[in-house]
Amino acid sequence: MKTINIGILGYGVVGTGVAKLIKEKKKLLESRIGAYLNLKYIADIDTTTDRGLDIGDTILIADAKKVFSDPDIHIIVETIGGKTIAKDFILKALENGKHVVTANKALLADFGNELVKTARHNQVDLAFEASCGGCMPIIKSLRESLVANDIKSMSAILNGTCNFILTKISKDGSQFDDALKTAQELGYAEAEPSLDIDGHDTAHKLAILNSLAHGMEINLEDIHVEGIRNITPVDIEFARTFGYTIKLLAISKIHDDHVEARVHPTMIPKSNPLSHIDKSMNAVAIDADATGQTMLYGHGAGMMPTASAVLSDLADIARNIISQTKRRVPILGYPEDNIKKIPILSMKELYTRYYLRFDAKDHPGVLAKISGILGENNISIKSVHQKGRNSSGKVPVVMITHVAKEEWVQKALNEISTGKSILDRPVVIRIEETNQE
Amino acid sequence: MKTINIGILGYGVVGTGVAKLIKEKKKLLESRIGAYLNLKYIADIDTTTDRGLDIGDTILIADAKKVFSDPDIHIIVETIGGKTIAKDFILKALENGKHVVTANKALLADFGNELVKTARHNQVDLAFEASCGGCMPIIKSLRESLVANDIKSMSAILNGTCNFILTKISKDGSQFDDALKTAQELGYAEAEPSLDIDGHDTAHKLAILNSLAHGMEINLEDIHVEGIRNITPVDIEFARTFGYTIKLLAISKIHDDHVEARVHPTMIPKSNPLSHIDKSMNAVAIDADATGQTMLYGHGAGMMPTASAVLSDLADIARNIISQTKRRVPILGYPEDNIKKIPILSMKELYTRYYLRFDAKDHPGVLAKISGILGENNISIKSVHQKGRNSSGKVPVVMITHVAKEEWVQKALNEISTGKSILDRPVVIRIEETNQE
Repeated sequence: MKTINIGILGYGVVGTGVAKLIKEKKKLLESRIGAYLNLKYIADIDTTTDRGLDIGDTILIADAKKVFSDPDIHIIVETIGGKTIAKDFILKALENGKHVVTANKALLADFGNELVKTARHNQVDLAFEASCGGCMPIIKSLRESLVANDIKSMSAILNGTCNFILTKISKDGSQFDDALKTAQELGYAEAEPSLDIDGHDTAHKLAILNSLAHGMEINLEDIHVEGIRNITPVDIEFARTFGYTIKLLAISKIHDDHVEARVHPTMIPKSNPLSHIDKSMNAVAIDADATGQTMLYGHGAGMMPTASAVLSDLADIARNIISQTKRRVPILGYPEDNIKKIPILSMKELYTRYYLRFDAKDHPGVLAKISGILGENNISIKSVHQKGRNSSGKVPVVMITHVAKEEWVQKALNEISTGKSILDRPVVIRIEETNQE
Repeated sequence: MKTINIGILGYGVVGTGVAKLIKEKKKLLESRIGAYLNLKYIADIDTTTDRGLDIGDTILIADAKKVFSDPDIHIIVETIGGKTIAKDFILKALENGKHVVTANKALLADFGNELVKTARHNQVDLAFEASCGGCMPIIKSLRESLVANDIKSMSAILNGTCNFILTKISKDGSQFDDALKTAQELGYAEAEPSLDIDGHDTAHKLAILNSLAHGMEINLEDIHVEGIRNITPVDIEFARTFGYTIKLLAISKIHDDHVEARVHPTMIPKSNPLSHIDKSMNAVAIDADATGQTMLYGHGAGMMPTASAVLSDLADIARNIISQTKRRVPILGYPEDNIKKIPILSMKELYTRYYLRFDAKDHPGVLAKISGILGENNISIKSVHQKGRNSSGKVPVVMITHVAKEEWVQKALNEISTGKSILDRPVVIRIEETNQE
């Protein structure tokens, strides 16, 4: 049997998980792949902390260069994270003719096109199943399974921290800050949580999936991103009244000459399978023209689910090596020459439905004022819900609109906000109506 | 660009779908795969019926031999169905050195081991993504994505007809016969529906998935199979009272030296994601040691979803041909020499929980009699629900047991059934408690 030599850069949570699987699943992997996966090196600046794994004395080293320069190494696994040394090391590994496996969505979202180009130039593979949706085979599905489909739309829950917090607010009526604190105590959220809760992590993943779904260059910067900091139990309760659940969704929809790509809290009806995805679980729903609606569901993060995805990439590359082939499936699902630039729709051009909540003074004529301004801006109201005055003397007025243009809605809200009868900036949550089979 | 020549055997629904995708997605497929997929022949005894597809004059022929003997043909797609000529043609195609793609689960479940052996002997690929779960990439996930996982258990809704009927009974309170009639009128059930509603189709798929999940020979005959003919609105209503939904599940669980593999109506709690899979949709939930709980969801049948899965196999094989490799991933996920025989647990050895419904005469002491016999057989009761006498003077007594052995339960029910106070054969529905994340 052939031996495939592997080097891991970064011995943190994911790196440890990968080493653990290579070690503990040695027999299974050999039995399935028909080759030895030999972990030759792990490079990390910290060579002393005990990760609870017996990998032998000679494997853990501080010098990453020794790993990506070693002529025996076939595959480099990058689990350092971040966009500085990780990028530098990956580029060097690719230039040295190593295949690279990474879970680094932030790096791919920002510099993926450059990495793909470098991999092409050096005729090696770059694999990243673990970058989106953790253990779910979403990258493989888009690259290989849905190959005869035009992907009409994707909507996805791609951040476990946000989903945990939204579930917590929804089930317990917690305030956002308390739900975040619980998430931090349970290890679902970082001490510095903004990458997750402000939607950026979800946007990184959407940039990658968007590229694979539509055969386009990775484009993070044009994706509109909103996080979940402003979601309150009040809005979740109103959502329930109207039959909706609030989720932080990554949304991608293809149109004739552009694509929608946006991340924001979204109201979805109970008939949408994503509405049942709770706690820290992730899911990607895809509507493609041949398959119709499909969904993948699983743990989007965590040591072992992420390591499982890395191992599927390692197995794929190992099978290529045994079969004496490489770059069998193009990195972005389309050969590089066929990758297009598809513009992302400017947010103000978006047409969708809206949930609007106004905290109004309980004056006669307030409702007429609001509806009037909305009407003048072409926004028609599907339903209105006005609750009794609350303790602070404010009256929450909630409206669900028919499909309207984002630009009109923002203009109308600006006009309404300047009025004396409205106390706070109105709450705006977009609604996705989805047709389940 | 290289041209990959394809022949389709069988121009029925799936064959038409495959031809349609090859034709209509020509540009997309070429752009993704970097090769031409050329549909050279379709063989069908009926060469006159209009399938609504313009494939040109020379492609449709009656002589299948011409297709699988043509030296130019790289891949044969078998969409005839059944186990007679389909088997014969596939064997001949394999022997002629053609790669074969099939959606034929009945054939694979019964003769898969022989087909795998023949493919190996002739060093060609045999692919069958469309055989289980329609468009869902379940075969690919088991063979490639979950490669570093031991699959602890799978539970799956694999038959759209059954799921449609159970959803109909559940939502409308229909009787089974009426729900079946509706399913037939809407095209979800065949005129002769027994393959679906008696659970055999689900068992065929389970035999295939079981093999892939555990690296074992395909074994259909030891799978216990029960269908849904006896499911009544009464039991669905009781299930709801206890917080359960009834689904026809395929269940596979690995143990030290054997595997459970069974198909039967099953009560599952609302926390199980499968409980939300309604109408004709399919889903496969997998609990693996590294990933934890995952699920795939999608259309399990239908022309285009099935054709989409066939095309993913075609693309895989085409990419192999372009990369000048073959048999890159073993047919059953493990190289043939590593495939084991793992015995399937005899049903009487099963330990699980049970829902039992007795239609008893309203005599004093009936409940004591039933509980007594259950107790003597080691079966302890978790909860009892006794409704008021119904119009026929019968009293439904419903019990949920703790975990008990199937053998004990069957023995106890035989004893109870012989008693004069019980009117009908008791209803037995097994319960799966699942731990979601």
